[in-house]
Amino acid sequence: MSNTPVYFHHLGISVADLDASIEWYRDKLGFVLENRHPIPAIPAEVAFVANGDLRVEMFCVPDAVALPPDRRIPNDDLRTHGNKHIALAVADVMALAADFEARGIDIVWAKRFEFGAAMFIRDNSGNLIEFIEYPAPTGQATRV
Amino acid sequence: MSNTPVYFHHLGISVADLDASIEWYRDKLGFVLENRHPIPAIPAEVAFVANGDLRVEMFCVPDAVALPPDRRIPNDDLRTHGNKHIALAVADVMALAADFEARGIDIVWAKRFEFGAAMFIRDNSGNLIEFIEYPAPTGQATRV
Repeated sequence: MSNTPVYFHHLGISVADLDASIEWYRDKLGFVLENRHPIPAIPAEVAFVANGDLRVEMFCVPDAVALPPDRRIPNDDLRTHGNKHIALAVADVMALAADFEARGIDIVWAKRFEFGAAMFIRDNSGNLIEFIEYPAPTGQATRV
Repeated sequence: MSNTPVYFHHLGISVADLDASIEWYRDKLGFVLENRHPIPAIPAEVAFVANGDLRVEMFCVPDAVALPPDRRIPNDDLRTHGNKHIALAVADVMALAADFEARGIDIVWAKRFEFGAAMFIRDNSGNLIEFIEYPAPTGQATRV
């Protein structure tokens, strides 16, 4: 360890339709557009959306390959090594699931387990996002 | 929005060697083993490692497919839609890069840009982790 404070900054995702993704994260999860710009070296059109301390960086690359179908199913996704999903802590998963259902969000499943409840949803591109029941964190800096 | 506070909880990854991954996140980034248990329904052997408010959940699934080679290269990875990587905010990316280099961490690249510096590293499985220069966040709750 180098004793350097680090903080979660963003999840990077690759999407098919940048406008549609900005709209989905705004309408469904309250993320606001921070900035949007091209990165010619990739090449990609890129947008940052933020909600409090969470951010999503969206890359839209011309002619990118569609999301592999197994990546839409949590257990199937795990059968290929790699970065898979982020999980967000929430006090009451089943209450949030009821709210999401009422608002037409694509819920993969929401279940109670011994440790509490968990839920997977899909964004408009099919990307998985997990919610897990957990006390609020302390807010302390992580040091790597 | 349902005005529900959520907090970053963990990044889920799928790995080839659970012991080696627990060891890498401990030795390189200071993550401590929280718990380890089987999830027969997947089936997988699972470990949670934590450092402050950051956690990584590692799934080891028998006979899982190896990390696709394009997922080891940031720009190539973006050419397939999906969840790609998390990025951690740090005050001085190039100082952290020098420290990582001295400790033999696999750095993909560390570069200065107009907005500040950024760096990608690979964990022991080849999974990308980004570091980005950014002021420390406020610690406020995100509300979805």
